[in-house]
Amino acid sequence: MHRIAVIPGDGIGPEVIEQALLVLDKVSSKFGVRFEYIFIDAGGCAIDKYGVPIRDEDLELVKKCEATLLGAVGGPKWDGLPGNLRPEQALLKLRGGLKVYANLRPAVLYDELKDSSPLKKEIVDRGIDILVVRELIGGMYFGPKGREVKDGDEAAYDTEVYSKSEVRRIAKVAFEAARKRKKKVTSVDKANILESSRLWRETVEEVAKNYPDVELSHMYVDNASMQLVKDPSQFDVILTSNMFGDILSDEASMIVGSIGMLASASLGEGKIGLYEPIHGTAPDIAGQDLANPIATILSAAMMLRYSFNMEDAAKAIENAVKIALKEGYRTRDIYTENCKLVGTKQMGKIICENI
Amino acid sequence: MHRIAVIPGDGIGPEVIEQALLVLDKVSSKFGVRFEYIFIDAGGCAIDKYGVPIRDEDLELVKKCEATLLGAVGGPKWDGLPGNLRPEQALLKLRGGLKVYANLRPAVLYDELKDSSPLKKEIVDRGIDILVVRELIGGMYFGPKGREVKDGDEAAYDTEVYSKSEVRRIAKVAFEAARKRKKKVTSVDKANILESSRLWRETVEEVAKNYPDVELSHMYVDNASMQLVKDPSQFDVILTSNMFGDILSDEASMIVGSIGMLASASLGEGKIGLYEPIHGTAPDIAGQDLANPIATILSAAMMLRYSFNMEDAAKAIENAVKIALKEGYRTRDIYTENCKLVGTKQMGKIICENI
Ligand SMILES: [Mg+2]
Ligand SMILES: [Mg+2]
Repeated sequence: MHRIAVIPGDGIGPEVIEQALLVLDKVSSKFGVRFEYIFIDAGGCAIDKYGVPIRDEDLELVKKCEATLLGAVGGPKWDGLPGNLRPEQALLKLRGGLKVYANLRPAVLYDELKDSSPLKKEIVDRGIDILVVRELIGGMYFGPKGREVKDGDEAAYDTEVYSKSEVRRIAKVAFEAARKRKKKVTSVDKANILESSRLWRETVEEVAKNYPDVELSHMYVDNASMQLVKDPSQFDVILTSNMFGDILSDEASMIVGSIGMLASASLGEGKIGLYEPIHGTAPDIAGQDLANPIATILSAAMMLRYSFNMEDAAKAIENAVKIALKEGYRTRDIYTENCKLVGTKQMGKIICENI
Repeated sequence: MHRIAVIPGDGIGPEVIEQALLVLDKVSSKFGVRFEYIFIDAGGCAIDKYGVPIRDEDLELVKKCEATLLGAVGGPKWDGLPGNLRPEQALLKLRGGLKVYANLRPAVLYDELKDSSPLKKEIVDRGIDILVVRELIGGMYFGPKGREVKDGDEAAYDTEVYSKSEVRRIAKVAFEAARKRKKKVTSVDKANILESSRLWRETVEEVAKNYPDVELSHMYVDNASMQLVKDPSQFDVILTSNMFGDILSDEASMIVGSIGMLASASLGEGKIGLYEPIHGTAPDIAGQDLANPIATILSAAMMLRYSFNMEDAAKAIENAVKIALKEGYRTRDIYTENCKLVGTKQMGKIICENI
């Protein structure tokens, strides 16, 4: 029996979570394992209900679960609120509370979806299989921030801070992951200008000494944003900071065709993990059975793999997704000519049937 | 007579500057105007000669010129130096010293170079004509930075700071530019997380009230990095901060095919301007007559337009570049099948002949 905190969230969150839970139910009966779901409100829906992005008692409940499966939070409805009351604050609190410092985002190009990539055939034909390892609970998104008035001119600041121990632990995750892949780490920073990037680079080089079998290179973030478009096949593992990782992992998602396909795992010490799709709440299509549930379903697969040690079940889900794609089923976001257009629920059902 | 500070810099800098000066010489004789060139060492070459990225007396000399034309600075040779002795420090000092707060980077897709874009034909066929307006002397690249040790753990920090007056003046540049284009400004920030971004957004909305004829929208930076790849035709003017602009303008450069084609102007109050190609020093191809001089030549054209009010001469250069491309001449970086491969010097010569 595994206790899972389930956070549907806002926008398309509840719809895609619903399908992921159906998939987990199928896994449950097929693999003879029981899951207990603890439903938690977080994000905009929690603001509406309780006036806060996530209640402290709910955060405590989440911490008592083995893993958390999250849909997405946020939306224009709550955009006018002050910073500490934004739905996104729930994500920061969850990541901080669970101390999940390593965000793993695979960006994989499926053969069947090559046409969905915005890149030219000759570039995608070289293949795309990138794992972005993003530091998740440090840097500018968590550093000191505020406002001040100087000579009548209002100013606002945010602080990018990294300590060596923070960089060390995320670098280790990247090198360990690279060992199981193509043994190549590209560390992305802005060391030609930022002091925090220089400390980042020094520390990554120190950690690299323990991984002589892994090839390390450094790249400036502005160059990385170009190289991802120019030749994504050059990358294996991209190791980077919270903010740069936010930008680059989304760019990496786009070049493989659809952000609706991409899962993520956020890992801390031990087996604790927070699993969520990369995409947002997409309020424009919420509640219309249009959302692609695959990213959330694949996030559930990552949960089975990293938190529950259920490699076979994880593979069964991933394989079921591949079969659905091979059979030509597509949600709107990945639809191309001559494919079969399906909604959120039907896509979930087809994947369940393939498990 | 116009006094121009000329900073060849490092790597391919001197080669591409040489061709731009030949083009200016041609303009000089054709349009009956005299240019005086004041050569200044800055970047790695200045470190080698004087031990500093740029000498104070040289910075003063630059300030006395009407405009500055710069190649590129930096290279792996100086990467090991402490932050304040990096070649890039020269750029920051120049930008800060000249108070050029607005960096204008056009990313235009030339019909002849459509094949060089890494994006699919159906995307580039919609056209790409983006002007990135990047704040250049504020934000994290100039904010307080340093190191500190806490409980034996070394940390480093950088600070993103923006005041309302800084945001106001750069926003005005973007709205003014948009008025002369498609009347559309996309302001890019991370207002869902950063306090500085929230101040940015508020201020941009205040400025927008004076431009009711210009359409303003806001976009998060991670989404912008995706949208640039997915559908660049949606953008007209992108207004953003120093750091986000560094990343996004390089990405915008890549999607139009070659960074070797793209010029930039950095403007302050009055007619003062710093003109430079977007590309770096490319040390791997330096001194081999392989670099594309077009970005620097087009930067010289921007100088004629913005600092010297010589619109006709600027157009003559831009037209000469188009003719060279139409006739099939290409440097290595933009070469495609059935074109005529030329070196740096020959490309410069052909463009001169077309003026
Ligand atoms: Mg993001
Ligand atoms: Mg750059």
